[in-house]
This record gives sequence, C-alpha cells and structure tokens, in this order.
Amino acid sequence: MDLSRLDEYLDSADLDGYLLDADSTDPSQYYLSGFDAPDPFVTLYTPAQTAILTSPLEYARAKTESRADAVRRLGDYDYREKRAEHGREQARSMVLAEFLAEFDVTAVGTNRRFPLFTADSLRDRQVTVQADPDDVIEEIRATKTEQELAHIREAQSANEAAMEAAEAMIADAEVGSDGDLQLDGEVLTSERVKATIERTLLDRGFALDDTIVASGQTGANPHDSGSGPIGVDEPIIVDIFPQSKTTKYHADMTRTFLKGEPTAEVADFYETTKRAKAAALETVEAGVTGADVHDAVCDVYENAGYPTLREDESTETGFIHGTGHGVGLAVHEQPQISPDGGELEAGQVITIEPGLYDPAVGGVRIEDLVVVTEDGYENLTDYSETLVV
Amino acid sequence: MDLSRLDEYLDSADLDGYLLDADSTDPSQYYLSGFDAPDPFVTLYTPAQTAILTSPLEYARAKTESRADAVRRLGDYDYREKRAEHGREQARSMVLAEFLAEFDVTAVGTNRRFPLFTADSLRDRQVTVQADPDDVIEEIRATKTEQELAHIREAQSANEAAMEAAEAMIADAEVGSDGDLQLDGEVLTSERVKATIERTLLDRGFALDDTIVASGQTGANPHDSGSGPIGVDEPIIVDIFPQSKTTKYHADMTRTFLKGEPTAEVADFYETTKRAKAAALETVEAGVTGADVHDAVCDVYENAGYPTLREDESTETGFIHGTGHGVGLAVHEQPQISPDGGELEAGQVITIEPGLYDPAVGGVRIEDLVVVTEDGYENLTDYSETLVV
Repeated sequence: MDLSRLDEYLDSADLDGYLLDADSTDPSQYYLSGFDAPDPFVTLYTPAQTAILTSPLEYARAKTESRADAVRRLGDYDYREKRAEHGREQARSMVLAEFLAEFDVTAVGTNRRFPLFTADSLRDRQVTVQADPDDVIEEIRATKTEQELAHIREAQSANEAAMEAAEAMIADAEVGSDGDLQLDGEVLTSERVKATIERTLLDRGFALDDTIVASGQTGANPHDSGSGPIGVDEPIIVDIFPQSKTTKYHADMTRTFLKGEPTAEVADFYETTKRAKAAALETVEAGVTGADVHDAVCDVYENAGYPTLREDESTETGFIHGTGHGVGLAVHEQPQISPDGGELEAGQVITIEPGLYDPAVGGVRIEDLVVVTEDGYENLTDYSETLVV
Repeated sequence: MDLSRLDEYLDSADLDGYLLDADSTDPSQYYLSGFDAPDPFVTLYTPAQTAILTSPLEYARAKTESRADAVRRLGDYDYREKRAEHGREQARSMVLAEFLAEFDVTAVGTNRRFPLFTADSLRDRQVTVQADPDDVIEEIRATKTEQELAHIREAQSANEAAMEAAEAMIADAEVGSDGDLQLDGEVLTSERVKATIERTLLDRGFALDDTIVASGQTGANPHDSGSGPIGVDEPIIVDIFPQSKTTKYHADMTRTFLKGEPTAEVADFYETTKRAKAAALETVEAGVTGADVHDAVCDVYENAGYPTLREDESTETGFIHGTGHGVGLAVHEQPQISPDGGELEAGQVITIEPGLYDPAVGGVRIEDLVVVTEDGYENLTDYSETLVV
C-alpha cells in the first residue's frame, strides 16, 4: 500500500492530516484503516501515524484488527461528562477536536463525501476542514498491489463459474408452447437464473450484490436488473459483480446470450459490440486516457450508424453509458473509462463494457475485466463470446 | 408517509428545501425519493414538490419509478458545455445550483452525512446549506406506516425460518472425539451454520448481510461474527438481520444456543439476560425514553453483580453495548435504546437485545423485535428462548 500520494497531497495543500468518518462499507475507510466495522468510526492519517477513534464496543477489536498505530475511544476524552453537559452531537465533536489535538492536527483534508455535520462542527472549533476535490485515496486505490490483484482474480474466477451456471440454464432450456423458455418443465425466469448465480457465488464465499439477468424490453434498460419469463429469440444480458466476503474485492463481467434465432438487428448489435470492445482493448495501455478508450468505442458505434451520448447527449437508445470503470473494494471506482476519464496507469483494474440498447430490439452488452499494463493490458476474463447458446 | 415534521423543520429553520445527495443504499434517500439507484443522485424536497436530479442513464427510470414530481438530468443544464469549460466537479456543482434555482431554492437543510464537497461548492455559489443536527428524516423514518410494518413482519418471519434452520443444525449435532460438535460426519463450524442461514433467507428473497454465529471466545466479542469449529458446552450466539430484496426492510433477532452442559456461569448469564430482556419489555411504551428502557436492563445486570458500561464506561466484560435500536430500511436506525435514547412513539420498531460477555465464560445475547404501542408493545418475534438444544 503506497500512500506517498496522500503525503504529497497533504504537503501541497498545507494540511496536517487526512480524516475519514464512515463505516467500513466506505471502501476508502476500509482501505486506510484496515478495520471492518459496521458503524461509523473516525480514521486520522498523518505522515507520522494512523489513529482510529471508535466506540467502546469496537475498541478491543480495533486494537487487534486495524492497521492503526493508535486507537482511542470516546471515553478517553470524557465523552460521558461532555454528553451530560452538552448533548450527544456537541459532545462527539468536542471529543473529535480533542482527538485531533492529541495528534497535533489543526488542519485536515477529507474525502468528497465526508459528512457535512462533522466538518461544520470541527470548523466551529477552529479546525480547518477541506474536502479534497480529487479524492486522493480513491486515486491511490485505483492502482492495485499484487495482493489486491490476486483477490480480484479469485473473484473473477468465481464470477466465471456463476456465468457458466447461468449460460447452462439458458442453453438447456426449451421453447414452451407459449414461446417462453422452459427448464425442467417450468418457465425459465430471470429470478430462477439469478437464484442459480447467487447460490453458485454463495457456495464460494461471495456476497450477492444485485445481479442483472435482463431480456427483451428489460434488457433495453441498462439499469433494469430484469424480472419475469425469458423469451425465445431475445437477447439476455447477464451482468454479475460479486464481492468476496473475505477480501471485500469485487469482479465484474457481462455476457449476452440468446436461445433461438436472433433478428438481424440483434445479430448486428452483438457483432458491432464485439468490435467496439476489441477497439477499446486495442487502445488500453498506461498513459492513454479513459476518454481515449471511450472514444474508440463511440467511433465504432457511430461509424456503424448507432447513436451515442457523445453524439447526442439526450439519446435514450444506442450506446447510452460509459465504456467502463475501475473495480476493487468498490464495484464502481476510479478510473473512469468515459468522457471524464484521465490517464490510465499500470496496475489499474478496469472494465470494458460497451453495449447497445433499444426498446424495439432489446439490449446487448459484453464486458471484460482487465489490468492495465505499461504496453497494453492483461485480460482477467476467461470466458467465450457467444450469443446463441 | 407523513412528512409534516420535515415541513415544520424547514419552516422553523427558515429553509426553502431539504437536499439529499446519495445513492439509494442511503435509507433516507430511498425513503424520500422512492427511487432505487446504485449511483449517487440528488433529491430536493420542498413543501411544494419533490424533484430529482440524475444522470442520463437513470433519467427514464427515475421518471417512471421514483415518487418525484419532477425529474431533471445533467444535460438539462448544459452539463457538457460546463464540463468542457470548468471541469467535472465544478460543472456538477454549477448544474446543481441551477437545479435549485429552477425550484426557487436558495437555502437548504441536509442530513448530517450530506457530502461536504457538494455542500461547500453550493456555499461558494451563495446557497445556504445547513446540516440538520436532528436528521429529521431519520426521525420520520423511525415511526412506521402499516405498510412498513407489514414489510418488517414479513422479514421477521423469514428470519425465524433461518433461526430454526440454525437451531436444528446445532440440536442435531453430536460430540466428536475431540470435543468439537459434528454434523453428518463433519465438524460443525460457524461457517456451515451461516451458509444454511444464508440459503434459507436467499430462498425467501432476502439479501445476506453479515450473520453472527459466534461461540466460545468469539461469542464474547459482540461484534465478532464468528468462525471455526463450534465447541460442545459453549454458548453459541446466533444473530440474524436479513433485508428483503423487494421491500428493502429489515428484521433482527438473536438467540443463544448450547449443545451439552452449560457451566454455572453460562446458565446464570442466560437466566439473568432473560430477566433483563423481560424488564426492558415491561418498560416499553409510548412516552417512555430509550434511556429508561436501557436503565431497566442495567438495573437487572448490576443488581445481579455484573458490570455495565453505565457503571464503568471502560469495562470490557459484562453488558457492554446498548439495549437496542430502531429497525427499518436500515438495520440500525432511530430510535436508540441507550443512554442517548429519547421518547419512544407508537409505531416505532425497536430491538431489545441485552447480553453478557466475558472471554473467560463466553457470550450470551437474546434479542426480540417489537413495535411500540400507546400502552406497551407488540412483540414481532415468535421464537422460544431455550439455551440447551
């Protein structure tokens, strides 16, 4: 874990430390503190040391499990007396100010989403609090260590097992009398496929975020997770993004399957999306911007006559999302592979996930997970691209 | 959904509206917007209407699925041109300021955890932003409607099914040669019991937060979720808090089981905790404070000679957490049943979960989920209290 960028930020912004106030579902909190706790706690980073301020309940665990050099609890600053005199919220901010003072900190940087109430109550106590517009910890998190890469590879192989189980259900399905797909004598629904995906991941120790199994009309909406019967001759988007319960790292992959005969439009959606993904991967290497990679996708789609948000920011059909995003402790993190995307660095883990959407046709998306390298990328995804199964 | 308290807050604080900037995993955001989205979006509440500002990707869905009267997207305020000229972050806050201006809002209240960067960039644009110290939306959420109660009852019955499955595994286990419990010829571990709990909930459409199955030493730490073999003659804390994938509402229940012979200390932990829970429930009714209910638990424990945080805020054994908390869209929400707990109101759903912890003895906790009524409570928990199974 290389925090030199954090030191540089503090130095350049003339700040004594970096402050987080969140529970460990905030990936930056978990990353900086190394402490997994369900309720909000405070982490103070200074170039000299990392300190945690927590409730009595978490005190013992924080001492043994976190990466902090120092652990304090509310009671270390007479919280109870302060609460009796000033009330809970005031007492908490008084304690926090004393905690900062103990570590000679009078000016802190914070992440963008630092809680406003905490910031204002520190400012009331003459502490300088400045939200870091670049979220330097998110920047640091974007570049993975070898150990983080190992965690993500492990997540991706569990993801591939879940995708195989989903593909098998669709491939084994048969066309029922009413045109719906049937498996084992029952209608094949998005819910059934999702349940199989979830069980496959659960058995491997992965938590179940939402999973997308969306066909027909629902598949045409990139954020509809899908529901109801899966139709024959319709593209089925399967997008899986599991998180390891042990390491908390994610993987992310999408494939689109179809049982039956694709229409000419769907077949062209799929072939063009394959080309768009290949063009994006061609572009990926350290030094190229996420915007460049996104442009490569837009070029392919626009040349093929499909609308994109680049061409028309109000379009609701065609390529209507970014090309990808970083993946790690968060399933969506830096860097962005979009018009806002800056320079890629070796060791960043990103998705490449072009797609086309049209309520009249359906939706198609293909997504790989790759690591950026100095001269290109390594694809962490080992899964075939086949529409008709 | 009765938002009159929100209107009163805005009126008394002389604010035009209430602003949230979060994804729908923030329960107040989901509650106020009625919109389930994985990425942060903005909700503006005014007594006249509710408006959402979202990305183009979510625009169509927000129009159909949210409870907002008006939905806007970044593109409605020339986001692209602004971004080209001023960069992403500045462009976003310029758009947000124009969004507020469109609804004649120049002064907003926010929740305590509103993102600092958003607040400061609005203040730079002469918008008054004030963090509401009382988090009025959390207050409103604490009192449940009949529909919300129905969602929580449904979650609790799924929770009871999961608890039964866990209890059955422990009851059916046998003592192996090395003193570990065995089931079906394999060591019974916390992991195995958790997997059964998770499958039972998954089959009923409930998401899997962390689950606690903690025995022996791990059971003595209230926040250790447990791991490894489960020993004979040891108390096993099983704490389950599922969330419905459909309604997003939670349930919460804890039982402590033991296979074999409890020590005298464990037996007394259990009996005293039963009495502490009964004393707390005796106290519960509208108008009583959460602090009163918590004191009833502390009285029982202290009279029985056990340390409590009330008596000694630095104790690491005995009763070392609060008595309970509200349950709803969040598994921990208002009201608090602790020294900080204010007056209870009819319709609030709370846990009552006293417990005793000592590394030399183990941990015992018993938790029910109840609804506060005008003259007492209704217990939503239908599950026996038996230590030895």
